[in-house]
Amino acid sequence: MSDSSTFEVFFRKYKEILERQMEESVNLLQTPAVLKDAMLYSLTAGGKRIRPLLLFATLDALGKDPEQGLFPACAIEMLHTYSLIHDDLPSMDDDDLRRGKPTNHKVFGEANAILAGDALLTVSFQMIAEAPEQSIPLEAKLELIRELALAAGAEGMVGGQTADIEGEDKSLNIEELEYIHSHKTGKLLTYSVMAGAVIAGANMETKRYLHDFSMHLGLAFQIRDDLLDLDGNEEILGKPVGSDEDKHKSTYPALLGVEGAKAALEQQIAGALTALEKTGAKTALLQEITDLVAKRDH
Amino acid sequence: MSDSSTFEVFFRKYKEILERQMEESVNLLQTPAVLKDAMLYSLTAGGKRIRPLLLFATLDALGKDPEQGLFPACAIEMLHTYSLIHDDLPSMDDDDLRRGKPTNHKVFGEANAILAGDALLTVSFQMIAEAPEQSIPLEAKLELIRELALAAGAEGMVGGQTADIEGEDKSLNIEELEYIHSHKTGKLLTYSVMAGAVIAGANMETKRYLHDFSMHLGLAFQIRDDLLDLDGNEEILGKPVGSDEDKHKSTYPALLGVEGAKAALEQQIAGALTALEKTGAKTALLQEITDLVAKRDH
Repeated sequence: MSDSSTFEVFFRKYKEILERQMEESVNLLQTPAVLKDAMLYSLTAGGKRIRPLLLFATLDALGKDPEQGLFPACAIEMLHTYSLIHDDLPSMDDDDLRRGKPTNHKVFGEANAILAGDALLTVSFQMIAEAPEQSIPLEAKLELIRELALAAGAEGMVGGQTADIEGEDKSLNIEELEYIHSHKTGKLLTYSVMAGAVIAGANMETKRYLHDFSMHLGLAFQIRDDLLDLDGNEEILGKPVGSDEDKHKSTYPALLGVEGAKAALEQQIAGALTALEKTGAKTALLQEITDLVAKRDH
Repeated sequence: MSDSSTFEVFFRKYKEILERQMEESVNLLQTPAVLKDAMLYSLTAGGKRIRPLLLFATLDALGKDPEQGLFPACAIEMLHTYSLIHDDLPSMDDDDLRRGKPTNHKVFGEANAILAGDALLTVSFQMIAEAPEQSIPLEAKLELIRELALAAGAEGMVGGQTADIEGEDKSLNIEELEYIHSHKTGKLLTYSVMAGAVIAGANMETKRYLHDFSMHLGLAFQIRDDLLDLDGNEEILGKPVGSDEDKHKSTYPALLGVEGAKAALEQQIAGALTALEKTGAKTALLQEITDLVAKRDH
């Protein structure tokens, strides 16, 4: 089997396990129907599941059973989903479409969308606390919870989103743009990789290279996102192209030019692959994810 | 010293320790200034701090140093503060005033208010994870995190708030009203007491009586809230009276009549005090808090 068909099999298998567990966990909640529906609506909207996949692939690279990371993987995807719901709100990015479907607040109203986001954020910490103890020892769980809060909160994703909204209609320099992206998207991508390292009990050196890898990957992800917004296919993308321009958002292509942004993307991808090599681990799947990020069309 | 002056001294001391720690923790965050300001604005708006106080007093009743509960107490108050910020939003209760000051979104705008709430919710889990290990052992921390998620999420506070919003402009029966209140306010009050029991390592019997106590206290708290909304002093209350009526919210006085609601309040207070007695612990401070809830004018 070629590397990429191995990847396809792995990808499909763990995506299915993840989605089943997320749905089961939410379905078990004793809560008003509208809240459960709003949570499930966005959770099952069919994202790429890149973050959980990174966690599973990191465990695989370190010689562990990927399923050990199932509950934290659910936590990451639930937390990511909450951030999309809140980002789409009228007072934030005011988006009507997400993954080709009406955004959460368009279907359930603004109050329920805010509450569904709040509930998803909250349950993500619960998922880690409730992971089976044979897969994750107590101390690792606490580290995963603490690091998730750091990646997702004021010093991470929420800080990045705040700066992003502050930066609208302003022209930002490259440092400001990198602050926004490294916090808004980067921290949770990094967390997804590092969570795998924590669960696997990786040594400090391996952790350092995996951290480098995830930083490069996060930047590549964001540059690709900006390029897609510029010239992606609206139908595949599931949201209008050019929406960053409409909102006067600073982007890599705007700052570096399209060719400059493409060169920066190549550079980040190369950096990511070099870091992977240095880990000395079986990183074929992580390489495939890196390729996916470089070439993705949605 | 009389019981109530002991209480005053205890109350002032731990309120101060709590507020200092919350401010310090938020001030240390590396995050955009507007987000930090929005978080601190609501955290320092001077609430009654009933929930952290319950935790401190429970530890005292069980013969432990109340300061062992400092970080979870901060977590509870930060989480409570997030819930107030989100509840006040235009799409939710649409309140302009809170504790006599403009609500968070009136000062910082809706997007920043949502993000400040998200950040406070997130950091509350971090506070528990980062509590000094000599005050709370690993296993107790994980239990506190899991129970906080349960109390605050879809099966707790967020579920109650969803039902509350669904119930506006509808006439609810007493069971529906009790679902809303036991979830929207009750679960976090119960958590505040039970967190003390977890940290103190209380036995099952003591836990059961403390749980009974907190359930009665939570209902008393809500009935008093409804009565205050009806005939409280707007200046002391810091928000307009009669706002429930304006929003056509179902309340205890509306369902039971003012006299009926007052009788129900007395009944819950009596239940709370009986449960406290059964614990056999030194519950003088918890009794004082119960009195405070019964008689509070804001």
